[in-house]
Amino acid sequence: MKDFFQAVITANKEIIELLENGSSEEFHQSISLGAGGDISSKIDLLAEEIFIKHLSRFGNIYSEECGFVDNKKSDDIIIDPIDGSDNFASNLPYYGTSVALKRDGKCIAAVVVNLANGELFIKDESRFERTHIGKSQFKNVEKNRYSKLGLFERTYCSKGTPELMRRYGIKYRSPGAFALSLAYAHDVDFVLYEGKMREYDIAAGLYMCEDLHVEKTDDFLLVSQNKEIFDKILQFI
Amino acid sequence: MKDFFQAVITANKEIIELLENGSSEEFHQSISLGAGGDISSKIDLLAEEIFIKHLSRFGNIYSEECGFVDNKKSDDIIIDPIDGSDNFASNLPYYGTSVALKRDGKCIAAVVVNLANGELFIKDESRFERTHIGKSQFKNVEKNRYSKLGLFERTYCSKGTPELMRRYGIKYRSPGAFALSLAYAHDVDFVLYEGKMREYDIAAGLYMCEDLHVEKTDDFLLVSQNKEIFDKILQFI
Repeated sequence: MKDFFQAVITANKEIIELLENGSSEEFHQSISLGAGGDISSKIDLLAEEIFIKHLSRFGNIYSEECGFVDNKKSDDIIIDPIDGSDNFASNLPYYGTSVALKRDGKCIAAVVVNLANGELFIKDESRFERTHIGKSQFKNVEKNRYSKLGLFERTYCSKGTPELMRRYGIKYRSPGAFALSLAYAHDVDFVLYEGKMREYDIAAGLYMCEDLHVEKTDDFLLVSQNKEIFDKILQFI
Repeated sequence: MKDFFQAVITANKEIIELLENGSSEEFHQSISLGAGGDISSKIDLLAEEIFIKHLSRFGNIYSEECGFVDNKKSDDIIIDPIDGSDNFASNLPYYGTSVALKRDGKCIAAVVVNLANGELFIKDESRFERTHIGKSQFKNVEKNRYSKLGLFERTYCSKGTPELMRRYGIKYRSPGAFALSLAYAHDVDFVLYEGKMREYDIAAGLYMCEDLHVEKTDDFLLVSQNKEIFDKILQFI
């Protein structure tokens, strides 16, 4: 597992370097061939190529842009090369990468990186830790006792839930990168996502929420460290 | 002005160092003495003390925690020592500091720093530039042609606007630090804030939006680089 984690970190470092030195003109070119049906930006493709280069020796690749790449391996690697592409295009510093390793259909390792500030979350069966990319000291991810808000993704296209949140006095932000928000789930009151989810949106992030309260349907995903808030939101959603 | 900017940057560096080395226990102690009527955290007070130490020689200080400190100067300095305190408490990486220098009631210089990733915006009569704290190369702040969304602050307590945004198909994020969002206004389609504003919330940020479309009432502030989106939102808000 150490080799796998090292390869994911190396890939992320290469992507960060690319973002720092590349040109906006190039990154934001629109290209429509995403397996998810989205219009992709050039940066999504470039980041995906970097992951494929570093990770193909560990498993088959399933990613937003390329779809499924069969490397004749027993493990699968689920990648969101740029989580929060629209934030990246808009210079809003909340976007990242998400990588999950699956064996026998079960997630056994994951890495989520916030590319905007270098924060890195890493989890396997024996640890769930955070650090900053380039730093060598890891800290255990623990539930944050000081949280004052939740994260409600896709508020902008939700019908009714914002009004209910207001009525119930539930404070939230809507930052716009879902895998990243799931990685931060232990820091906040809750993470709520409304809408269809694809595997690369949630594989790594959801694995990081194993020890939290989780409710997932086809239409929404709710995760919370706090049973009271979890039940309150479930009751009206 | 160079001395003033240098002092603001030095203060921000000291705050970043404090955040990196201090204890959460201490930072998040609640203290209720904010001039704005808010309950402050210890970190707000500590950050304010750092600003007062570095900036008092340049003017009288007006800030959220201390109110007005008369240093018998002709200039006033308007400070939000921690913009996005609840984000900071919740480990959501979008919080900063905001400093504006006023002469004869008019803003003549401002600095906004994103403490979560070190991004820094600096403006006076001759320049509006951005950099990363600790870096010496500045870039002009320019309108971002690739933006895909706006910033709608305080969505969580807005009555009706989220539903109207959805109907009109206007995509937004709600990141939760207002001065910071105004500093990013050239990067995004619009910045909208609903609710009462206090001077330290907007002094620096609004000065950075001089060249954009601006509508301000007692209840909301709308800023946009895009006249079409600006008019569209104005028509229903």
